[in-house]
Amino acid sequence: MAINSARLQQTLQKLAEYGAVPGGGTTRLTYSSEFMRAQEYLRQEMEKAGMTTELDAAGNLIGTLSGRQPQLPAVMSGSHLDTVPQGGNFDGALGIAAALEVARSWQEEGYVPKRSLQVIATAEEEGTAFGMACFGVRVRSGEFKGRKANEIKCTSREGTLSDCLQEAGLPQDALTSAAAGFGNLAAFVELHIEQGAELVEQKREVGIVTHIVGYDRLHITFLGEANHAGTTAMHRRRDAAAAGAEVVVAVRNLARNDRRFVATVGKFTVEPNVPNIVPGRVSLCVETRSYSDNVLREIRQQVLEIIEKAAADNGVSWQTDGDFHVPAVPLSEQIGKVMQQEAGRLQLDCLQLPSWAGHDTQIFAGAGVAAGMIFVPSAGGISHAPEEYSTPENIFSGCLLLESVLKRLTEEM
Amino acid sequence: MAINSARLQQTLQKLAEYGAVPGGGTTRLTYSSEFMRAQEYLRQEMEKAGMTTELDAAGNLIGTLSGRQPQLPAVMSGSHLDTVPQGGNFDGALGIAAALEVARSWQEEGYVPKRSLQVIATAEEEGTAFGMACFGVRVRSGEFKGRKANEIKCTSREGTLSDCLQEAGLPQDALTSAAAGFGNLAAFVELHIEQGAELVEQKREVGIVTHIVGYDRLHITFLGEANHAGTTAMHRRRDAAAAGAEVVVAVRNLARNDRRFVATVGKFTVEPNVPNIVPGRVSLCVETRSYSDNVLREIRQQVLEIIEKAAADNGVSWQTDGDFHVPAVPLSEQIGKVMQQEAGRLQLDCLQLPSWAGHDTQIFAGAGVAAGMIFVPSAGGISHAPEEYSTPENIFSGCLLLESVLKRLTEEM
Repeated sequence: MAINSARLQQTLQKLAEYGAVPGGGTTRLTYSSEFMRAQEYLRQEMEKAGMTTELDAAGNLIGTLSGRQPQLPAVMSGSHLDTVPQGGNFDGALGIAAALEVARSWQEEGYVPKRSLQVIATAEEEGTAFGMACFGVRVRSGEFKGRKANEIKCTSREGTLSDCLQEAGLPQDALTSAAAGFGNLAAFVELHIEQGAELVEQKREVGIVTHIVGYDRLHITFLGEANHAGTTAMHRRRDAAAAGAEVVVAVRNLARNDRRFVATVGKFTVEPNVPNIVPGRVSLCVETRSYSDNVLREIRQQVLEIIEKAAADNGVSWQTDGDFHVPAVPLSEQIGKVMQQEAGRLQLDCLQLPSWAGHDTQIFAGAGVAAGMIFVPSAGGISHAPEEYSTPENIFSGCLLLESVLKRLTEEM
Repeated sequence: MAINSARLQQTLQKLAEYGAVPGGGTTRLTYSSEFMRAQEYLRQEMEKAGMTTELDAAGNLIGTLSGRQPQLPAVMSGSHLDTVPQGGNFDGALGIAAALEVARSWQEEGYVPKRSLQVIATAEEEGTAFGMACFGVRVRSGEFKGRKANEIKCTSREGTLSDCLQEAGLPQDALTSAAAGFGNLAAFVELHIEQGAELVEQKREVGIVTHIVGYDRLHITFLGEANHAGTTAMHRRRDAAAAGAEVVVAVRNLARNDRRFVATVGKFTVEPNVPNIVPGRVSLCVETRSYSDNVLREIRQQVLEIIEKAAADNGVSWQTDGDFHVPAVPLSEQIGKVMQQEAGRLQLDCLQLPSWAGHDTQIFAGAGVAAGMIFVPSAGGISHAPEEYSTPENIFSGCLLLESVLKRLTEEM
């Protein structure tokens, strides 16, 4: 075992240069020249580590360290190369650098695993370009097979996927030619920063992810009556904003008292939104997230009761404007057990916890691949900002765990 | 006494034709061709009723029925000719039609008052064009004397007052030449629809207005931290929208339990306003209205305590973005007594009440003119909408009271 902490930090620093923002942080949007140059850097590093490389037409880069039985389905590890605008230097990049470091260490050791090890740097996990998270991995899974690149519209700029591919110098048949599927994968393991503060608050060195949370979005509108803010006596009002505000407060109180889920009213739009008119209309979205779909169903019922009560209290009606449910994804129990055993062996203080954010891993797990995630503590729970930070010590510990877990999986699965 | 209910209704119907909206209601914006044609109609009706007329450069039309002692300050009555977009047929128009009907009846009777009676149709009371209520009367009061018409910007369209005057065929020196002041007025009385539901709910025929309410607007911003709606645990959130929502609910509860004031949060703007980000910033305006400035001061203190508590509860800070106070205006007690005596004599079931909306009358009262208002019941408390309605019987009763009050004031003041 020869995980090299200094080399790992250098890789991270090098990746951070592609799209570095003056003053700190990184903007490395999928298919941008920074993104393509970072990918070229990684391709060269993979080859130096003895891997063969493939760049699929969707912009995912895969390096393969051939195993003793290369005909067996491989074990894959990695994360995403894209960042949000003005993001940090760790979200995504860390999981690629760590998987690459594992391959380098095995090459140095002269260790050849039974199954091949693949390292992946995925494209467009953040969903910045097309309004869809995990886009690159979804393409690879075959989700868009047969569709055309000019049918996928950009949400961040004018144009389509077709234009983006052309600018990046990638072939136009990405949606089909990159759809390799996951049939040749035995397992997928992603190392990622936590993005929350649970590990820091509980003073743990690594996290073992049990589930990726699902979420429930309920879009509703309260319909009251816009009216004069002076002449409309309080008892005659049908104030849509007062109804909406009751929901915000009650939903927050519900979530504060129950650690099985979080709830957010992030969108709250008032009409006509002027000081001297009692609001006639409010549109809002209640989002709940939980590691358990049963919990989400239970809470949805309570949220509906809160909405009913708020409407009745304020003499307004309400309507749904649609809802959106993404199921929670349990990760592989088998891989979770291996992670716990290896963390114990390495004397790492670990915590089992759900991931409250979405990740590429959920696409692999959803497609039936045995999948696991390792979390490294995030300072202050901050991510998607230049202030994002994890200590070199925590990163080293996470990479040690990743290495030993990948070794177990390549040998034993 | 010869108030003619049918003639009064005909005048109202005629006025409603200028700017009639297909399907009901009226749009008669100040200086529009509908407005200018309605004014011309009124000018002719005033002259038929034996009045001399003057159109001031700000668009206020004044008819004078000369008294026995025309050198004495006159008694004035009337209301505004402009409407809000898609307004009703009674708000403003009724007070002009009623004052005109008083002049007609006196002419028919051959009654010549001691003081002259002036009937006014004011411009731009609604504040649609320049973002300022009672604009025409403010100009007449001298508030803008010496300023230039091209300095007053339109808020409803491109251009300035200068452009509006030009299109209406009015002279450019409106702000100065129309600034006649109120030195030659002994009293002002306005008849208006209530716009609230107090008279209807209490089954009264007329209202005698004691005060025009003042208001207090407190613009504030809560500053929290925009954050990931999944990974940010509830206890780590600094949710600006939750703080704002607590204010909306608490302020409404305060006002529901205290009939001395009303309170509204009509403006509530969330940033970044997307479902999956804990809101980092909310700007809102708390407006309170009361007939008593002491009550407004007392409530302001309680609102500030609510804001402090909401900020502390949600770990956010707050700042004021400015406040705006318009003092309550008490109307003439002397005129109020005359109104009560005359209502008693006419056996009208009356109620003393504040006006919860602003009116031209407050500009006259604020300038030291003895001023009073009579309210006619509004069906359902509705105004500023095509559904605005008052019964011919209530209108007749209000006009009877106006006539006898104006007779007392022209003789006795």
